[in-house]
Amino acid sequence: MAGNTFGKNFTVTTWGESHGPAIGAVIDGCPAGLSLSEEDIQPMLDRRHGTDGTNSRQEKDNVKILSGVLEGKTLGTPISLLIGNTDAHSSDYDDLKEVYRPGHADYTYDVKYGIRDWRGGGRSSGRETASRIAAGAVAIKILNELGITISSQTTRNNELPASGDSVGGSVEISVKGMPAGIGEPVFEKLDAELSKGIMSIGAVKAVEIGCGAKVASMTGSTCNDGFILASTESLPEEDSLRKEEILTNAGKAGSHYITKKTNHAGGILGGISDGDEIILRAFFKPTPSISSKQQTVDAFGHETEIEISGRHDSCIAQKGAVAAEAMTALTIVDLLFENMHSKMSAVSDFYK
Amino acid sequence: MAGNTFGKNFTVTTWGESHGPAIGAVIDGCPAGLSLSEEDIQPMLDRRHGTDGTNSRQEKDNVKILSGVLEGKTLGTPISLLIGNTDAHSSDYDDLKEVYRPGHADYTYDVKYGIRDWRGGGRSSGRETASRIAAGAVAIKILNELGITISSQTTRNNELPASGDSVGGSVEISVKGMPAGIGEPVFEKLDAELSKGIMSIGAVKAVEIGCGAKVASMTGSTCNDGFILASTESLPEEDSLRKEEILTNAGKAGSHYITKKTNHAGGILGGISDGDEIILRAFFKPTPSISSKQQTVDAFGHETEIEISGRHDSCIAQKGAVAAEAMTALTIVDLLFENMHSKMSAVSDFYK
Amino acid sequence: MAGNTFGKNFTVTTWGESHGPAIGAVIDGCPAGLSLSEEDIQPMLDRRHGTDGTNSRQEKDNVKILSGVLEGKTLGTPISLLIGNTDAHSSDYDDLKEVYRPGHADYTYDVKYGIRDWRGGGRSSGRETASRIAAGAVAIKILNELGITISSQTTRNNELPASGDSVGGSVEISVKGMPAGIGEPVFEKLDAELSKGIMSIGAVKAVEIGCGAKVASMTGSTCNDGFILASTESLPEEDSLRKEEILTNAGKAGSHYITKKTNHAGGILGGISDGDEIILRAFFKPTPSISSKQQTVDAFGHETEIEISGRHDSCIAQKGAVAAEAMTALTIVDLLFENMHSKMSAVSDFYK
Amino acid sequence: MAGNTFGKNFTVTTWGESHGPAIGAVIDGCPAGLSLSEEDIQPMLDRRHGTDGTNSRQEKDNVKILSGVLEGKTLGTPISLLIGNTDAHSSDYDDLKEVYRPGHADYTYDVKYGIRDWRGGGRSSGRETASRIAAGAVAIKILNELGITISSQTTRNNELPASGDSVGGSVEISVKGMPAGIGEPVFEKLDAELSKGIMSIGAVKAVEIGCGAKVASMTGSTCNDGFILASTESLPEEDSLRKEEILTNAGKAGSHYITKKTNHAGGILGGISDGDEIILRAFFKPTPSISSKQQTVDAFGHETEIEISGRHDSCIAQKGAVAAEAMTALTIVDLLFENMHSKMSAVSDFYK
Repeated sequence: MAGNTFGKNFTVTTWGESHGPAIGAVIDGCPAGLSLSEEDIQPMLDRRHGTDGTNSRQEKDNVKILSGVLEGKTLGTPISLLIGNTDAHSSDYDDLKEVYRPGHADYTYDVKYGIRDWRGGGRSSGRETASRIAAGAVAIKILNELGITISSQTTRNNELPASGDSVGGSVEISVKGMPAGIGEPVFEKLDAELSKGIMSIGAVKAVEIGCGAKVASMTGSTCNDGFILASTESLPEEDSLRKEEILTNAGKAGSHYITKKTNHAGGILGGISDGDEIILRAFFKPTPSISSKQQTVDAFGHETEIEISGRHDSCIAQKGAVAAEAMTALTIVDLLFENMHSKMSAVSDFYK
Repeated sequence: MAGNTFGKNFTVTTWGESHGPAIGAVIDGCPAGLSLSEEDIQPMLDRRHGTDGTNSRQEKDNVKILSGVLEGKTLGTPISLLIGNTDAHSSDYDDLKEVYRPGHADYTYDVKYGIRDWRGGGRSSGRETASRIAAGAVAIKILNELGITISSQTTRNNELPASGDSVGGSVEISVKGMPAGIGEPVFEKLDAELSKGIMSIGAVKAVEIGCGAKVASMTGSTCNDGFILASTESLPEEDSLRKEEILTNAGKAGSHYITKKTNHAGGILGGISDGDEIILRAFFKPTPSISSKQQTVDAFGHETEIEISGRHDSCIAQKGAVAAEAMTALTIVDLLFENMHSKMSAVSDFYK
Repeated sequence: MAGNTFGKNFTVTTWGESHGPAIGAVIDGCPAGLSLSEEDIQPMLDRRHGTDGTNSRQEKDNVKILSGVLEGKTLGTPISLLIGNTDAHSSDYDDLKEVYRPGHADYTYDVKYGIRDWRGGGRSSGRETASRIAAGAVAIKILNELGITISSQTTRNNELPASGDSVGGSVEISVKGMPAGIGEPVFEKLDAELSKGIMSIGAVKAVEIGCGAKVASMTGSTCNDGFILASTESLPEEDSLRKEEILTNAGKAGSHYITKKTNHAGGILGGISDGDEIILRAFFKPTPSISSKQQTVDAFGHETEIEISGRHDSCIAQKGAVAAEAMTALTIVDLLFENMHSKMSAVSDFYK
Repeated sequence: MAGNTFGKNFTVTTWGESHGPAIGAVIDGCPAGLSLSEEDIQPMLDRRHGTDGTNSRQEKDNVKILSGVLEGKTLGTPISLLIGNTDAHSSDYDDLKEVYRPGHADYTYDVKYGIRDWRGGGRSSGRETASRIAAGAVAIKILNELGITISSQTTRNNELPASGDSVGGSVEISVKGMPAGIGEPVFEKLDAELSKGIMSIGAVKAVEIGCGAKVASMTGSTCNDGFILASTESLPEEDSLRKEEILTNAGKAGSHYITKKTNHAGGILGGISDGDEIILRAFFKPTPSISSKQQTVDAFGHETEIEISGRHDSCIAQKGAVAAEAMTALTIVDLLFENMHSKMSAVSDFYK
């Protein structure tokens, strides 16, 4: 495909330009019988929208479910999600119609397509993430049913930008309650698919798993996580749901389960989850839309200067954290389904 | 798929266990009429094999082309590549049959599949990279035909490991001669697909594009790369082939072309190549196989200790660099093909 | 995916239940720069809707383009198409909520999903074809730009059904102006992909290419189509656009081109188009919704009888013809794009 | 992909030219823990090879498993199958190097690729089916474990071809023990995927499901299969394994199960299996290689005549039946896996 679909078993196709009539997503492969309503999705869109003053676009993103749900339950058919574009100020962009904004995709879209929607960044706008976040909320609903939770912590580096400037930031994602055995070896490793998902968020320029880049300066004896046995009694309260799974996975160990004394690996070994907490980090560049003067070139090949007005977050990472949670959830649900036919005994049990 | 195929238009499927009779790869989607012989592939396998003393496995990997080539030209049909396993010392692994090596995939494979090939790591062995490197050499051949070149530089962090220990390292990949416009927006961004490809190499724990993690502590005014016009006269000699393309892309600029005064973005804007050098970095963990004693657990759920003998590189990054070049090439070729139908005018020109 | 997406390069994802708020389709991979508006799509929906009295559902299907088009040109981004459900009479289906209609998917959906939308057949309704027809109209627009045209002829077998009964029918599709070389060998043969597309239309139970089932009773000497040379002068007027292509394909033959003296093959040899007219046939079962009394079983496992009221076509094949044209167009566009990187020389020409 | 891979969850990639050193297949997605050896595959290759005098190529096709199996059990990793080409008589084809054989893919390959392997048909040879049959044997092994069996019956139409001529034929495939609920609605219907698989076999020109083309001349009241209840006591002996599944599917019916009084649908309703026998038919054209004189054109654009010598089956349908069984098995296994995550309750049960 031309890149607007994510996933193989639980797929999301997003569509829409920032200042068109609407944006949206279609989920295919959501299992039937999941409780789902707009109330499950709206809070995550509200988190993206922000209440911390970073977003000056006032519209609230209201999501509508157009298909795939009947009387509060998913049907197993595609779930079409629609979000109207109600607060687009296209005129803010009139001056930018034929100028290439630094740090943006204006130039590359023009080269690739020979045409671009200049209104608010069009398809390359950060607004697209609302679609994937809406779909991600459905994935999170599925994960929660299975006792898997995702959280994130944002670090806004360089706290105080000068006037008219912006700052970068980073996000750490944690996944708890993850069963061991998830991820396909070789090319569709759990960490490889997570990296793709996270790096597909507009402003991300680096992704780390576990200790990340630090591993390059470690030695094997410090980096390796030794396996140990732990008593199921010692499991944290929130992992009580995991006990049964843990015991199943490592049944040979009786009332103990196999775990690692450290987690430098970030919960992934050989591309497959090891049952430990999954830890990954995303690094976001500063918002490229800044109001201070910048040197650039226009579509006619003339050098020029640009000052970008309009409403822009001073740091993308806050919204980015919500998008990163969504991509993490979408990736994990996809691989959870894939894993269901890894063993012949599981297939036989299902169809017996 | 269950993860052993990479790519959509130029696909590679690898197969084989470290100590089985052979390993190999099948390429589907290689265009017809490319000059190709085993001599195009062998040097890259030799680079992986190493002549710097890091590899104590003595076998040389000889590749055979079993299909898809006739009289030195590709046929457009699948190219099957076979590499024999001639120097496997399975008995080295007898003691490891039922013990989970720290930092390895033994435990996760056992959980996922209920069975694993314990001989030399089986499918999870670094040996698998020989298959993808062989396929990558074909991708590089295609790129070279188009004037695109890939190089890498390895940094072996922590130069001197203690006896019985290993060290991590990092690799920087550079792609020169890249046309602008490559990469699909949203989920199949060039950087997203590169990240997936690079992170799918066994020991990689972090991937960076351009300035990478540093962007998180930059401001917009320093991170944004301003667009400028440059005279085609000033193009470096090695880019002379690019001139025509550059002029085409930015034809409106007359004898000048559009470029950026800096390249913090690493040659990718909005997921699409901008015509600049592509720069990415991969961070490799230390070789997990170390001979010093380690704490672990066996498959019966008993705590135990392990000392890993056998032949192992003290730093994976050297071989990893070759694998990273291969994955970069495979990703780019795949997206070069995808891009050919981005514009209706290109489709019309092709079929007129 | 779970089956709601068709194609690889030009993909269509359809969504929506018959009596939900709307149905729709998302096209990904449409090239940028194609002239497109709702007026290009609406006529094909109107043809489906019918003016021949076979359809008693009165709503007209009005399509809206929600994304991917700016000022009458496609942007290269996803095209979201929306069709409201304005004339749904769900109450007609109250009695059918827990009864399995013979010839319908009620029972199989219930087994597969444990839940189903009983209102008008839900997702399994023939109404879904409106979505794929809307997307197919875009594919036809592309084909027409390339000089390729699709037409169909419907045969309504058993012309006069008894009161309360329905009849089957067949459709013959013809594709003219098709370039040679389209279709991928082995599993993605042009005829294989066409068969999948056509057979995915609800009521189709057989597909034929060229002479179809008759080939089984032919001999090689009568079935083989001998190759001949024809003067480009003798080309039918409507094929004048093809001349250039034909000469290119068979340039060695001077002012003549290579063709076949007969076309038993239906324009496809070895899964690849041969430049001749493509001919295929689809056979539709009678509309399963009939008003005469039928024996069946309900969801509680009781035998019962059913009389289906409501508004139903007496013959599906008329609407089916429009759907078959759409699926043919979607298949061919997808493979036209795929073919663009079959030769290294074509790739080199594109990127030189 | 460029068409040499089949399936999504259980994928098969075939490779190899008829007169190259070998042909083969790589299976990805075979569950771990299946008993498998070359003895499971060889008999199906022997059936293809034929003992009925239709095949004059003397080589026996010996398959070797190069990966994915350890000590008689599948590992969950790719299974690489290799079949040597030991009896290739390339010199038989010297005269055909630059002549387009009627009914063959010589001309279309030349147009598409600008190059072709003229030795024995190269990639377009019927020999490719040996690869897919080998992979199909693995799929059949999986089906048999689940109590699903496939059989076929070949009708050789026009029994006695004239000397130097060939005849067509048809094959009917039956699948017994099929669970209900298999197949994805809309585009990946069970019948759509089966049609693609069957039509991808070289000489097939028509595919039918259930009553096939006859439905076009039926009425709804005769074509619809009424649902009935049957006592599980009355199940045929060979379906005893199905009883539990049947009762589960239709548990509400107590000791009875839901079935149909007729099976015009061929076991598929709305693209989903209904638990009944699956019936499909494939129609094969006569072997295009005939020794009697034929009119044709050469690659230089000259009209010429051709007499094809060498060893050719007089009827393809016998070998075709084995290929059709293989494609049926590959399709069904793929969709059986897909179905495992159709219900949220199944996902929850798996991961609880």
